[in-house]
Amino acid sequence: MSTPFVAVLMGSDSDLPTMQSTLDVLKGFGIRYEAKVTSAHRTPAATHAYVQDAEARGCKVFICAAGLAAHLAGAVAGITTRPVIGVPIDNGPLQGHDALLSTVMMPGGVPVATVAIGSAGAKNAGYLAAQMLAVGDDELAAAVKAERQKSAEAVQAKDAALQAKLAG
Amino acid sequence: MSTPFVAVLMGSDSDLPTMQSTLDVLKGFGIRYEAKVTSAHRTPAATHAYVQDAEARGCKVFICAAGLAAHLAGAVAGITTRPVIGVPIDNGPLQGHDALLSTVMMPGGVPVATVAIGSAGAKNAGYLAAQMLAVGDDELAAAVKAERQKSAEAVQAKDAALQAKLAG
Amino acid sequence: MSTPFVAVLMGSDSDLPTMQSTLDVLKGFGIRYEAKVTSAHRTPAATHAYVQDAEARGCKVFICAAGLAAHLAGAVAGITTRPVIGVPIDNGPLQGHDALLSTVMMPGGVPVATVAIGSAGAKNAGYLAAQMLAVGDDELAAAVKAERQKSAEAVQAKDAALQAKLAG
Amino acid sequence: MSTPFVAVLMGSDSDLPTMQSTLDVLKGFGIRYEAKVTSAHRTPAATHAYVQDAEARGCKVFICAAGLAAHLAGAVAGITTRPVIGVPIDNGPLQGHDALLSTVMMPGGVPVATVAIGSAGAKNAGYLAAQMLAVGDDELAAAVKAERQKSAEAVQAKDAALQAKLAG
Amino acid sequence: MSTPFVAVLMGSDSDLPTMQSTLDVLKGFGIRYEAKVTSAHRTPAATHAYVQDAEARGCKVFICAAGLAAHLAGAVAGITTRPVIGVPIDNGPLQGHDALLSTVMMPGGVPVATVAIGSAGAKNAGYLAAQMLAVGDDELAAAVKAERQKSAEAVQAKDAALQAKLAG
Amino acid sequence: MSTPFVAVLMGSDSDLPTMQSTLDVLKGFGIRYEAKVTSAHRTPAATHAYVQDAEARGCKVFICAAGLAAHLAGAVAGITTRPVIGVPIDNGPLQGHDALLSTVMMPGGVPVATVAIGSAGAKNAGYLAAQMLAVGDDELAAAVKAERQKSAEAVQAKDAALQAKLAG
Amino acid sequence: MSTPFVAVLMGSDSDLPTMQSTLDVLKGFGIRYEAKVTSAHRTPAATHAYVQDAEARGCKVFICAAGLAAHLAGAVAGITTRPVIGVPIDNGPLQGHDALLSTVMMPGGVPVATVAIGSAGAKNAGYLAAQMLAVGDDELAAAVKAERQKSAEAVQAKDAALQAKLAG
Amino acid sequence: MSTPFVAVLMGSDSDLPTMQSTLDVLKGFGIRYEAKVTSAHRTPAATHAYVQDAEARGCKVFICAAGLAAHLAGAVAGITTRPVIGVPIDNGPLQGHDALLSTVMMPGGVPVATVAIGSAGAKNAGYLAAQMLAVGDDELAAAVKAERQKSAEAVQAKDAALQAKLAG
Repeated sequence: MSTPFVAVLMGSDSDLPTMQSTLDVLKGFGIRYEAKVTSAHRTPAATHAYVQDAEARGCKVFICAAGLAAHLAGAVAGITTRPVIGVPIDNGPLQGHDALLSTVMMPGGVPVATVAIGSAGAKNAGYLAAQMLAVGDDELAAAVKAERQKSAEAVQAKDAALQAKLAG
Repeated sequence: MSTPFVAVLMGSDSDLPTMQSTLDVLKGFGIRYEAKVTSAHRTPAATHAYVQDAEARGCKVFICAAGLAAHLAGAVAGITTRPVIGVPIDNGPLQGHDALLSTVMMPGGVPVATVAIGSAGAKNAGYLAAQMLAVGDDELAAAVKAERQKSAEAVQAKDAALQAKLAG
Repeated sequence: MSTPFVAVLMGSDSDLPTMQSTLDVLKGFGIRYEAKVTSAHRTPAATHAYVQDAEARGCKVFICAAGLAAHLAGAVAGITTRPVIGVPIDNGPLQGHDALLSTVMMPGGVPVATVAIGSAGAKNAGYLAAQMLAVGDDELAAAVKAERQKSAEAVQAKDAALQAKLAG
Repeated sequence: MSTPFVAVLMGSDSDLPTMQSTLDVLKGFGIRYEAKVTSAHRTPAATHAYVQDAEARGCKVFICAAGLAAHLAGAVAGITTRPVIGVPIDNGPLQGHDALLSTVMMPGGVPVATVAIGSAGAKNAGYLAAQMLAVGDDELAAAVKAERQKSAEAVQAKDAALQAKLAG
Repeated sequence: MSTPFVAVLMGSDSDLPTMQSTLDVLKGFGIRYEAKVTSAHRTPAATHAYVQDAEARGCKVFICAAGLAAHLAGAVAGITTRPVIGVPIDNGPLQGHDALLSTVMMPGGVPVATVAIGSAGAKNAGYLAAQMLAVGDDELAAAVKAERQKSAEAVQAKDAALQAKLAG
Repeated sequence: MSTPFVAVLMGSDSDLPTMQSTLDVLKGFGIRYEAKVTSAHRTPAATHAYVQDAEARGCKVFICAAGLAAHLAGAVAGITTRPVIGVPIDNGPLQGHDALLSTVMMPGGVPVATVAIGSAGAKNAGYLAAQMLAVGDDELAAAVKAERQKSAEAVQAKDAALQAKLAG
Repeated sequence: MSTPFVAVLMGSDSDLPTMQSTLDVLKGFGIRYEAKVTSAHRTPAATHAYVQDAEARGCKVFICAAGLAAHLAGAVAGITTRPVIGVPIDNGPLQGHDALLSTVMMPGGVPVATVAIGSAGAKNAGYLAAQMLAVGDDELAAAVKAERQKSAEAVQAKDAALQAKLAG
Repeated sequence: MSTPFVAVLMGSDSDLPTMQSTLDVLKGFGIRYEAKVTSAHRTPAATHAYVQDAEARGCKVFICAAGLAAHLAGAVAGITTRPVIGVPIDNGPLQGHDALLSTVMMPGGVPVATVAIGSAGAKNAGYLAAQMLAVGDDELAAAVKAERQKSAEAVQAKDAALQAKLAG
């Protein structure tokens, strides 16, 4: 029987510095993941084979990062019916505006769950995958809620620091 | 014990014609849903109360549609830790470009799973919610796969019609 | 009885370097202010509570700064009926274009008085708040007029320097 | 002694259909106003004279609507130190995107309180002017709050209609 | 032995009205073509199989039309090493701006020869394919030159009509 | 009797580094000019007075440079009926896209002759002013033609260098 | 000896409805003009020959209108050293945004005096040409000033109509 | 008899660092090329003469690189009927967005095969030229396929490195 995991695909290894935070978030929640460099355009057959195999082996959510004419998330969404999260990468002269439109404007029937361009999106791809898995996993759902609470406390700590500074 | 459902929130009843296809897709999969007109700006407290209550009553996925400075999805994502799908509506002079950026560019820790602007996105919000629920529901997963197969057959039927026309 | 003041809210403490000039302008006019880090998404309840409390304690104008899908100003505008000034911050790959649209394109009934992206806007948020308070405060109105006069003189001094340089 | 009022300036009489809702909102609050067609480019001296005179006669807030290279609000903001609200009009091939940037991106020291492009902004210009006047007018402040409450009730009525329809 | 031809692929049969002019241009040059409705996302395997088969049967140039997150041209370019011409279709709320970026911003190694959005591009896709085939076909090269000459004469005829009108 | 000259106005002395090349081009053609820092918003009356006076003293062409909501060229065009050349400056987060639209999208009757954003535009403002003055000055017309010839020779020298490098 | 005139070039006869107002403005000032349909791409040699001949015959200003990748103004500016005014036409899916950038962003040394997209720009091209010719023609300069005065009176008449309506 | 070659034209020698990769790709395939600095605006006659001569001497494909109002590719496409590949260069404040639209939005009848902005496009211009020449050259076609295979292997090597790192 398959063990559930998340697959994190990148169109290029230059996306790894941005996508490291996705991996960190998943690791933080104890979610098993695979990371893979694969290209919608240079290795389409290998991408196709990997996605089908990953789904068969228990991949529950795919996260795909790509820049420019960012087709990877859409290509993966056309192969699997598992949820696909797309992270538009802000490389190139248009700073990810191209990647955003290429990722989000998918035609009816083949959604890509798109998050913000670049580093904010990379982090959020991990959280969104956790939220998806938590739909059927109460323990993970509680961990996601706890993490949100910690993030609220971080804001409050920053405010406390500001108050101290202003009072200083 | 709570029964699982999807909540479909709209910032205005003028979004309903676009969002009807979301409801149709959910209905097609036999997914229970609630639809609600509620505003991030005009009824923030009611929105807050509804989201908390809905999560408590078993809402597993939120779908939020809004145009212009489309804050509804982000506001809901700040209240619940269930996955939130955002549909940017193409009303107003900027044709949804504003709503897309307001929905997708969420800061780290509070993701919104954004789909395409307008009608394609409305349909895909339903499919994406079904995919999320199908992570833990093999029967629904099979239905999603079957629907994808039907959509492939529709493309092939259109191609057959084109071939007939060209041959004619 | 409440003492009038301006509340300056920031979505993140990374907005402080930009927003320092807002505080400086307010201080220059002798306007009492509170500054606070609070998030529309990470601490929505705390934001709600603060805004209601601040209004009750005499806050006359709110200034809200946020980047990316900048919802803070709109969220605050949905809680209070005091004027809300929005400063779109130019962080992230889209350089504040996203924050501008998220701040300014508010639906009918819930205005945000939006100023320029980034540093020019931060300064102007302070001036605009002063202008609003000066509607009912002739002494402050005179101070605002005097400040405008000083800014005209600064332009003329720069022109004089240019003339000297060209004549040199 | 001067009686307080709001001046609503339009760059062209073609802006009147959009700006009628500004006048309606002001009228609804019982706020005295003057409306005037005047152009930053075709009648700059008349505009200058009117603004100075209006300020002297008690104008507390200026609302300026213009399309294309929309300079009217900025020009007025350079003449008066009363708050100036700018409404970008969505005429012309760029649908108000040009007017938005021309209105909002004001340099430090001369703010324009910019609202949304077109009809939403026109309505909000009236509300924002009311909010500004209400800073020093508790009765008006109460009327603004009551109006917000009515707008919340309108949303709830629309939701009730949706629930009835879904239940039907 | 294979007979040379051009394959014209469309992501949807709604692209046919725009793409008819591509077919007309090819027909005008006596270039053999196949037209096919096939989707990068809904029928990726069928698309893959068709492209490989078409290349084997003698397809020398692929023309791909798609709107929104227009991945079809890029997907085909990843399967074949024959030249791929991409036509961004102007459907959807962003009027083809999304399709343009999704088609043209291809990463190094996998080019798509992109033409203009919509009808101008559809016509030019046919001419560009003819130019490509004419690289090794002097008769076709002469026909392309003759067509250019006719287009110059059409401009001159329009000018003559204008002169007659102005003189009238 | 007035001596003809060109007036070069800048909204801020921070525009001088960009606009130095305008002054250099004018100087190169032996065209008399005045340069001045003056602001459409901070010193509107002084700007108005200067423009009227300059026109009376023989100013034949105005060149205006400004960034952000760049109103200076339009404001000057509303005061004088001499040709006004606008140079959008690329400061601020939107890199001059705002200044371009604020400068070029002038309403019917009040044109601004807009050149490129930033350094290319600054240089071209000088050339365009020379071309305008050369309409009635054959000697200057010959100088402009000679300069064009020199610029052609510069391109050819660069090509020669490239050929030498490739041959090397 | 040559008689001075303005040449109005259009890339296509479909630009004539927009450009008729250019011709009307020139006619209104009694300025002699030639209008011509000629294409930078389809009839480059004829365009080149016409521009050189027109300059020799006394053309003092060129006005060029084109849409899409609007090269006509730039191409003409590379042939003549007379001032070239560019009118970006708002045809095609990008509504003239492409034509604006293609017309205005000229490299150093070859300026195009760009006016607004579409109908406002067409009218202004005529006024700008008149202003350029008026640099050396005091009678025309007076006519341009008179026309500006009439346009101011038209604004004031519209304001009077508004006042009557409001008083009604 | 003419020997086939590719002509690589640049509007400025500042484009050479970007375009070196085009030359490298052509060299890698053993394709003969000429590189030339020539300007659509500064040396239009020389550009015209070169293109006609190059076509006569056996140039089969033109590659044109230019920034800003990038007219070079379109100008060349109007002179020759050989395929023209356009590379938009990302210099200037709009980062190549202007060059992209100026290159790709060509009117019907005069196509430019446009590739991505900047370095990705420069590389792809070489590959696309090779693909065009390979339509009638089986040996080159095999070399292009081999190169694609190498690029696939490069992706797989990067993935192997990632796996090693993750396993480490």
